[in-house]
Amino acid sequence: MAMKWIIDDFEKMERRYRGNLINSIGGYKSLHLLGTRSPNENNNLATFSSYFHIGADPALCGIVIRPNEESENTLGNIARNGQYTLNHVLPSFYEKAHQCSAKYPAGVSEFEAVGLTPHFIESFHAPFVAESLIKIGCELVEKVDVTMNGTTIIIGRIVFLEAPDDCLLEDGSIDLNAAQTVTCSGLDTYHVAQLLGKLPYAKSPK
Amino acid sequence: MAMKWIIDDFEKMERRYRGNLINSIGGYKSLHLLGTRSPNENNNLATFSSYFHIGADPALCGIVIRPNEESENTLGNIARNGQYTLNHVLPSFYEKAHQCSAKYPAGVSEFEAVGLTPHFIESFHAPFVAESLIKIGCELVEKVDVTMNGTTIIIGRIVFLEAPDDCLLEDGSIDLNAAQTVTCSGLDTYHVAQLLGKLPYAKSPK
Repeated sequence: MAMKWIIDDFEKMERRYRGNLINSIGGYKSLHLLGTRSPNENNNLATFSSYFHIGADPALCGIVIRPNEESENTLGNIARNGQYTLNHVLPSFYEKAHQCSAKYPAGVSEFEAVGLTPHFIESFHAPFVAESLIKIGCELVEKVDVTMNGTTIIIGRIVFLEAPDDCLLEDGSIDLNAAQTVTCSGLDTYHVAQLLGKLPYAKSPK
Repeated sequence: MAMKWIIDDFEKMERRYRGNLINSIGGYKSLHLLGTRSPNENNNLATFSSYFHIGADPALCGIVIRPNEESENTLGNIARNGQYTLNHVLPSFYEKAHQCSAKYPAGVSEFEAVGLTPHFIESFHAPFVAESLIKIGCELVEKVDVTMNGTTIIIGRIVFLEAPDDCLLEDGSIDLNAAQTVTCSGLDTYHVAQLLGKLPYAKSPK
């Protein structure tokens, strides 16, 4: 049987119940550990599941940052030096990635707290996650305030990419199954994926 | 071995190769069939993989619409009557969903062209996909133009939800594995997911 809800039902729901429902109803989400560096050189790492593709030329992506203390940290660091990293999660450390969503006191590095390794590349301040096979380096392009709930959409330009050569297909696609990339749903549920099919470019019949 | 690319490498890539790389590097994406209705009552259906969660109270989500003819159709319909639907895809019809990404002439309904069934509910103009187990009805809240590449971010309020009762967990979460929701990567690759784990709320140690 089908459950149906309309807008009035959402307003009557208990807060966490509504959060779980609305956060999971959109389907599977990408999962990233977002790395930033503060002016006093603290390495910050936060769990994000709101990555979306905006365009390939220039290479642009978006994330959503919520108006809470924890993300102020991430948002503040991005606003200050414009750089951040997005790192894929593997099944071998998805529990550590989840633990990065906990609120740690300012000055505590989530890398140390959960046991992941910061990794740096030349000319880039923000830390990557050494354990991640796929690493993305971004520079801030635009901040969009969503007035209706105080969140901020961060639009970034991809300036660095790293991926294992045996996951790169001939057409430029990354084989995420081979890369063991983890996907998530809602606020707390983690999955691996299995290929259904890779289809040819869709054309309408003449 | 790891492949590494920097921003200059992207600019030198062949257009489709770059599109495949940048579109797949972000990880697994949600997959929706987006339904709209035109002023002359044509039912439009388009494939989208850019859904992102913005907030639960009010229930807000975003999608990205590209500046091409096909999406002008979707964008135009949303701008005119403010309503659209987002419908999950099942393994049984993922090839039909992919076919909705083809360019059909204006006036051709993708529902008829690919063999899916429009479904209507009271007080809502936009068509749902009858075959989808999870159906989301949205109303336009805000349009954000991304000046750097001409795309548009559509922010919508969720006003209707439908999901099978046996996929609804006690805490309000939807079990996407049970709902057989399909996830995608890049522009052409489709997957189902398997549970790794559902973890308790993360707290920092005292």
